[in-house]
Amino acid sequence: MNKNSSNIMALAPNSPNKRETVCIFGTGDFGRALGHKIIQAGYPVVFGSRSTQTSSLIPKDAEVLSHAEAAQKAAIIIIAIQRQHYNFLTPLAEILHGKVLVDVSNNLKINQYPESNAEYLAQLVPGAKVVKAFNTVSAWALQSGTLDASRQVFVCGDDMGAKQMVMDIVRALDLTPLDQGSLLAAQEIENYPLQLFPMWKFPILLSLGLTTFFFFYCLTRDVIYPYVYENKDFSFFIVISIPNRICPISALTLLALVYFPGVLAAIIQLYRGTKYLRFPDWLDKWMLCRKQLGLVALAFASLHVLYTLVIPIRSFVRWRISSQIISQALNNETEPLNTTNAWLSDSYLALGILGFFLFVLLGITSLPSVSNNVNWREFRFVQSKLGYLTLILCTAHTLVYGGKWFLSPLSYRWYLPNAYMLSLIVPCIVLVVKFVLIFPCLDKPLTRIRQGWERNPQYSE
Amino acid sequence: MNKNSSNIMALAPNSPNKRETVCIFGTGDFGRALGHKIIQAGYPVVFGSRSTQTSSLIPKDAEVLSHAEAAQKAAIIIIAIQRQHYNFLTPLAEILHGKVLVDVSNNLKINQYPESNAEYLAQLVPGAKVVKAFNTVSAWALQSGTLDASRQVFVCGDDMGAKQMVMDIVRALDLTPLDQGSLLAAQEIENYPLQLFPMWKFPILLSLGLTTFFFFYCLTRDVIYPYVYENKDFSFFIVISIPNRICPISALTLLALVYFPGVLAAIIQLYRGTKYLRFPDWLDKWMLCRKQLGLVALAFASLHVLYTLVIPIRSFVRWRISSQIISQALNNETEPLNTTNAWLSDSYLALGILGFFLFVLLGITSLPSVSNNVNWREFRFVQSKLGYLTLILCTAHTLVYGGKWFLSPLSYRWYLPNAYMLSLIVPCIVLVVKFVLIFPCLDKPLTRIRQGWERNPQYSE
Amino acid sequence: MNKNSSNIMALAPNSPNKRETVCIFGTGDFGRALGHKIIQAGYPVVFGSRSTQTSSLIPKDAEVLSHAEAAQKAAIIIIAIQRQHYNFLTPLAEILHGKVLVDVSNNLKINQYPESNAEYLAQLVPGAKVVKAFNTVSAWALQSGTLDASRQVFVCGDDMGAKQMVMDIVRALDLTPLDQGSLLAAQEIENYPLQLFPMWKFPILLSLGLTTFFFFYCLTRDVIYPYVYENKDFSFFIVISIPNRICPISALTLLALVYFPGVLAAIIQLYRGTKYLRFPDWLDKWMLCRKQLGLVALAFASLHVLYTLVIPIRSFVRWRISSQIISQALNNETEPLNTTNAWLSDSYLALGILGFFLFVLLGITSLPSVSNNVNWREFRFVQSKLGYLTLILCTAHTLVYGGKWFLSPLSYRWYLPNAYMLSLIVPCIVLVVKFVLIFPCLDKPLTRIRQGWERNPQYSE
Repeated sequence: MNKNSSNIMALAPNSPNKRETVCIFGTGDFGRALGHKIIQAGYPVVFGSRSTQTSSLIPKDAEVLSHAEAAQKAAIIIIAIQRQHYNFLTPLAEILHGKVLVDVSNNLKINQYPESNAEYLAQLVPGAKVVKAFNTVSAWALQSGTLDASRQVFVCGDDMGAKQMVMDIVRALDLTPLDQGSLLAAQEIENYPLQLFPMWKFPILLSLGLTTFFFFYCLTRDVIYPYVYENKDFSFFIVISIPNRICPISALTLLALVYFPGVLAAIIQLYRGTKYLRFPDWLDKWMLCRKQLGLVALAFASLHVLYTLVIPIRSFVRWRISSQIISQALNNETEPLNTTNAWLSDSYLALGILGFFLFVLLGITSLPSVSNNVNWREFRFVQSKLGYLTLILCTAHTLVYGGKWFLSPLSYRWYLPNAYMLSLIVPCIVLVVKFVLIFPCLDKPLTRIRQGWERNPQYSE
Repeated sequence: MNKNSSNIMALAPNSPNKRETVCIFGTGDFGRALGHKIIQAGYPVVFGSRSTQTSSLIPKDAEVLSHAEAAQKAAIIIIAIQRQHYNFLTPLAEILHGKVLVDVSNNLKINQYPESNAEYLAQLVPGAKVVKAFNTVSAWALQSGTLDASRQVFVCGDDMGAKQMVMDIVRALDLTPLDQGSLLAAQEIENYPLQLFPMWKFPILLSLGLTTFFFFYCLTRDVIYPYVYENKDFSFFIVISIPNRICPISALTLLALVYFPGVLAAIIQLYRGTKYLRFPDWLDKWMLCRKQLGLVALAFASLHVLYTLVIPIRSFVRWRISSQIISQALNNETEPLNTTNAWLSDSYLALGILGFFLFVLLGITSLPSVSNNVNWREFRFVQSKLGYLTLILCTAHTLVYGGKWFLSPLSYRWYLPNAYMLSLIVPCIVLVVKFVLIFPCLDKPLTRIRQGWERNPQYSE
Repeated sequence: MNKNSSNIMALAPNSPNKRETVCIFGTGDFGRALGHKIIQAGYPVVFGSRSTQTSSLIPKDAEVLSHAEAAQKAAIIIIAIQRQHYNFLTPLAEILHGKVLVDVSNNLKINQYPESNAEYLAQLVPGAKVVKAFNTVSAWALQSGTLDASRQVFVCGDDMGAKQMVMDIVRALDLTPLDQGSLLAAQEIENYPLQLFPMWKFPILLSLGLTTFFFFYCLTRDVIYPYVYENKDFSFFIVISIPNRICPISALTLLALVYFPGVLAAIIQLYRGTKYLRFPDWLDKWMLCRKQLGLVALAFASLHVLYTLVIPIRSFVRWRISSQIISQALNNETEPLNTTNAWLSDSYLALGILGFFLFVLLGITSLPSVSNNVNWREFRFVQSKLGYLTLILCTAHTLVYGGKWFLSPLSYRWYLPNAYMLSLIVPCIVLVVKFVLIFPCLDKPLTRIRQGWERNPQYSE
């Protein structure tokens, strides 16, 4: 529906008498931008302002009156004024009685005031029907018409009729109203536009930490060590070779960390014998950001795939392969096919491909529009069954990759094991514990606990 | 909106007198979990129970009363009890008169009872306003707060006001209510959480069958045959080489099967001279799972792409290429560039890339949020025009790939043709028939039939 | 919810007295298809027709009556007749008084009539409650049950109760009603199904132009030039090598064109000293299709990635590498590792990988369901910060790729510079201007202007 907003403008001339006048208090940036848009949508607009001087900034088709005069002309009044100036409305209480007041204000930080601006407005003008709306849309977006981001306008209010009137205006502006219920939702609606990916902070910080640690780890082993002992300059490893070690390590560790809290929760529940005690706070928070952890892991896995696939195009790799071939040719050697090698190489590639494939599937099902179309049972099936399968495949991919070097002393430089060995720690712990938890002697009581059974039910009183 | 549910809790203290008491009948797992959540959202909660003994399981802030007492305290009563115990409500009919009863129950299998639980409840307590809700949310999800899956709560009921009250509670729990209309929708809502990918069963079984068949087919030709006749151990082909044959074959066949029913339907309609006769059942079912067939085909195609791109990293391939080069070098041979070969090799790669690219485009447009944003005309354009183009490109990719070996006797081992030849059968049939159907002498009557025209209109009476 | 429409049919027998009769005027294709579906959903259906002869086309369970008789049997009348025949309803005005009339009509072109069909219907039968619905669904889709595309049915109308009745029918047909507000929205709803990707026309034409130009440019340089001067046949470059030049060039140019209008707008605003003057029309249009431009650029970038990754499998490349190795082996040469080369080759690959990775991230956030879940601040962060980072990485990728050849005379053939040099023009302009705009002396006034400040506020009157 959002494709030709021009039609709405075309509609206006045909039905000038249908759209009711909208009053806007405040001639600031947002008020004017909203006014422009509402006029374009075919509504007559009156501005209420302290100074009734018309500025060139105010849309030409709009009248500018005093607050009281303007309010009398319309059933809907949009309060495009900052919260700290709301008290000027108190003297107007009588005129505003029964009117729909639309609170469009935002705060500067989350939970700035004890109550939301809309509830504060409702307290100030008790006779009016307060509706919260439009605060999620920016003046710039309204002005430039480039509403590329969300077209959703959250609307809440206690009066259904008032809410309907506001939602009609929202729709006329080519936006999508979303009824969020009563005015109690206003605080959350006001906090919404202030957030900047709140759930992503921990996963991103964690992955930054992981990548930094493994960068210096690999730098030491793969660049500094050969430089010190063999005087070889492999500094260009920083560009692709080392990132292609960091990415799979971070991906595997983060993926394991997605399933770790579930395993921990099961142990805690088994130990306590009940599911009705709250988990420690850190575990709760960890569980809530599992989706984000998984998506960051998927990002690392995708980078790993890309870094791996360009290997044969790398000038260093081409040089290494051709020098090997040339030296073999010059020495008149012909190596027979090593079937074990072929098996190992193909296996770890195939495990990686399948693991990545399932990982991408998991990522797709976590898209909001896809997860909204699956029910709880299907979602659990995908995220739990397919998720563990992904973890198993990716762990196996790493195990097979490094299989033969595990015990070789050559892979320890300055007593540092190969980086991929470290990446195996967390996934192996998770998989072993999960495997233990599948045994009936543990699985049965756990299932019963999760269905509400308690080992030591304590009746109070 | 779903990012900081904590705000809702913060709201509660500011508005203790606004939330109306909610009564919950039943102190089972789901009742308690829901009770916890509703208390967190700031509602006073009363439990109605046979035994009024407070257990530690019941949220501390909740009262536990007898059913009758509890019911009198609230306008909304959530019936968190299994259907077979509903009859205890009959004696309470008088107290429940005019109350909003929320049916949250689920069944164990689809269409277990002739009428839905909610409708049964409405029959038992005729004076109450029954609303179906919350059945798609699991107790575990409510308890743990990890509502990663759908936050949608389907709500239906005959009384608009009652529905509004329930939807307000749903929103307060940070879930998204979806009005599904009158109580007639309850049966479907009750069936919804019991499904496990119903539309995917046939495509997945079919592809399992296909892959199994082609696995043994390729195993015979590519591993057993060389072992028997040349005593060569190519068992490691099982890991990548054979999957990389099975995947493209399955992808192409399944993609062709997406367009097959459309072609069949056209033939049936042309033959019958009308579109108003129902298709045979199997064709109807086939048509309904075309999207799923296409997505499974896309999954196989993606795997094929990954398997193909790792070819140059495979240890076997590196060995083969280097032995070729070494033998050439040792024999002092320098081969000139074979332009025909370069053309063929590049062509089949380019066709595959373009085909896969369009295939991914098709997949993206089938994402619910994307297909909701295109109209019918645009959807038909993408799925039909681009779809056939994809099929043509992928078929051409296979044809060019195998071009020169078609008639070579070397490609027949034990009289078995190369596997990719089998994969060409279905797509070629579909493309040929579609090509024939484009001829005006067939296209014109078909278009007229699809616009409602009939060859032999039969008037009854 | 859309998974088992069969349940709705199963419901029907249990509640035969609940569904109210629906009347359909018109026994054309759409009327009959809709009638079939509504009967399946359990509603009794009466057809109103000029001729009351029942044809075999009309569903068996439906009665066919005269218009007047049929209208009297139902509260809802679906007008499945073309607009030009609406005037037959005028004599029926009395019978239709208070009835719900559902306008399902579509036009043949956008804005065909001054007012929408639904508004015209409302004028013809002033006593009726007109609701617009079902026009976005095709008869074929209803008939075949393959509603793969959008299941959304836009509904608008001035009477809430009437709209609710229609929306209940929509839901019973397993479709999703979307309330679009009052009847004023009808024109837009009627235009909706006539569109064919209106926002995509300009980006696609532009990219067609770009690709055509660069195809002939590269053909001249890479195929014709070597043929003329060296008599070498590189015609097969047309298949992969040249597309793999065109794709990155188009991708980079289009990506830069996404950010160009923003930079232009900033310059215009700085020059004018206000943001309240409208931009020139072409700039407005350009800004509105930035998302589409970006997605087309992403498509080209993806093709570039695929074309690049198949390089080592190409028969020509294998031949070239093996001839190089053989000639080195025959000449007994062993080349040492060129570290500078390794650095350059790895750097441009890594820059390309990171650029593409961010580009895909941008693409994912532009999916409707994802962008609906981020607020304005988050969207700006992603599209502006990450967007510029993508542009910088991709430009750097191209610069490093061609770095050493910039001034080499060998890269000029017939005075034509290498094609990638042309692709750098637009991105470099955008990045340089953007860099200049970041300087505080320009950034500060710009920020103030965007917050509503004006250099020369002109008060009128």
